[in-house]
Amino acid sequence: MSEKKSINERDNALFEAGIKLGALYHQFSGSPVNLKTVDSLEKAIAQSISVQPYVKSITVSIDREIIRSKLNSEFGYCELEGRMLDVNLIMNYENVIVKASLKFDRKLDYPLMKIEEISDIPQ
Amino acid sequence: MSEKKSINERDNALFEAGIKLGALYHQFSGSPVNLKTVDSLEKAIAQSISVQPYVKSITVSIDREIIRSKLNSEFGYCELEGRMLDVNLIMNYENVIVKASLKFDRKLDYPLMKIEEISDIPQ
Amino acid sequence: MSEKKSINERDNALFEAGIKLGALYHQFSGSPVNLKTVDSLEKAIAQSISVQPYVKSITVSIDREIIRSKLNSEFGYCELEGRMLDVNLIMNYENVIVKASLKFDRKLDYPLMKIEEISDIPQ
Amino acid sequence: MSEKKSINERDNALFEAGIKLGALYHQFSGSPVNLKTVDSLEKAIAQSISVQPYVKSITVSIDREIIRSKLNSEFGYCELEGRMLDVNLIMNYENVIVKASLKFDRKLDYPLMKIEEISDIPQ
Repeated sequence: MSEKKSINERDNALFEAGIKLGALYHQFSGSPVNLKTVDSLEKAIAQSISVQPYVKSITVSIDREIIRSKLNSEFGYCELEGRMLDVNLIMNYENVIVKASLKFDRKLDYPLMKIEEISDIPQ
Repeated sequence: MSEKKSINERDNALFEAGIKLGALYHQFSGSPVNLKTVDSLEKAIAQSISVQPYVKSITVSIDREIIRSKLNSEFGYCELEGRMLDVNLIMNYENVIVKASLKFDRKLDYPLMKIEEISDIPQ
Repeated sequence: MSEKKSINERDNALFEAGIKLGALYHQFSGSPVNLKTVDSLEKAIAQSISVQPYVKSITVSIDREIIRSKLNSEFGYCELEGRMLDVNLIMNYENVIVKASLKFDRKLDYPLMKIEEISDIPQ
Repeated sequence: MSEKKSINERDNALFEAGIKLGALYHQFSGSPVNLKTVDSLEKAIAQSISVQPYVKSITVSIDREIIRSKLNSEFGYCELEGRMLDVNLIMNYENVIVKASLKFDRKLDYPLMKIEEISDIPQ
C-alpha cells in the first residue's frame, strides 16, 4: 500500500513556487512586444507576480536577441514566447526558502521550470 | 437578396480598432495587481498594444478605487478585471482615424468597448 | 480640417467583429495541446466566443500538421499558436452581416485577421 | 547559516503540481462562458492541462450557480473566474504521487490552491 506523508512547509514552498511560474507563463505569453517596449513588459511581469503570496523576490529578463529574430518584417513586433523568458524566483514559505527558475533549455527545446535551491532560514 | 458591399479603409480601421481592444482585454485581464504595482501594469499594457498594426496612440488607466476595494484581506492583492480598465485608443488606417474606448458602463454593468469618433485625415 | 463621421451599424458590426477575433486570439493562444486534445480545444474556443455579443456563428479549426511539427519530443505536446488557427466568424449587428476570418498568411508570415464580406440583411 | 537541501522526487512532484494549477488558472480565466457552453470549457481545460508533464489525471468542474449569478442581463454571458473553478489534479513524478486542488475558499474569499495528499507508489 502507498504511504501518505504529512505535508510540511517545504512541500508548500515548492508547490507555491510552481504556481507562480505557471501563472507568469500563461498570463503573459502572447503579449505583443518589440525592442522599444520590452523593458516595460519585463518590469510589469516581475511586479505583477511579486504581489502573489510567499514571493520574496523575482527578476524577469526577456531575450532581446530572440525578439529581434522574431520581429515580423511587415509589422515590426512579435509575441512574448516562453523561450524568451529568463526568470529567477525566490519564495519564502514560513521557515523555508526556495529558489526556482524558468529558462529556455536548448537541449530539450523547452522553456524549463526548475527548482534551483531549497534551504532553511537560519534560526 | 443581400447586397455585398465593397470593403473600404473605414471598415478596416474599425475592424482593427476592435482587434486591439479585444486583444488587450483578454491578454491582461487576470494579471495580479495591487496599488504599488498598478503603474507598471498600466504602462506595459499601453506599450504592448501600441506595437500592433495601425495603432497611433493608446492610454490605459486602471481604477485604483476598484483595486482598493478588491484587495484580498489575507494576501493584499487582486486581479486585473475588465471593469477596472479605462482605455482610449486612436487608430490610423490609411486615411481614416478612429477613436475607440473601453470603459466600465455602470448601467449595463459591463466593460463596454465603444467607437468614439471616426474621421478622415485632412488632405 | 478633418471631418467627423456619424457612426452607423456597419461601423459597429466591423468593430465588434474585430473585438471577437482579438479576444479569441489572446484568450486561448498558449493553451497546451496535442493531437488527442485538439478537438476539445477547437470546440471550446468556438463555443466560448459564440456567447459574446452579436456573434451569429463561428467555426474554429486548428492545424493538425503544425501541431504535429511542434510537438516537443520529450513531453509530447505544444502550445496553441496563432498560426495554427483558422477561424471563420459571422457577426450580425442590427441589419448588417459581417464575415471575418483569422488565417495564417504565409507571405506575411503572420496570423492575419481579415474582413471577408459585408452585407445587409435583405428587408 | 542556512543549510541547502538536496532536491528530491517529492520536491519536484510538488513543484510540478503548482505549475499546472497556476497555468490552468491564468490560461483560462477570462474565457467567455454561459450555461450552454460550460461543458465544453470544462472538458477543454481538463484535456489541455492533462497533456503537460507528469499529469496523471485531472478533473475540472465549473460552478453553474456562480455562472448563473454573474450572467450579464443584457448580453447573457460572463467570464470564467477563479472562484468558479473546482479542480482536482493528480501528479506522478517518478515514485511520488501528489494530489492537489483548486477550490474557492469562502473564509479567505480566495480561489485556493492546496496540496491534498502526498504518497509514494508502492514498490
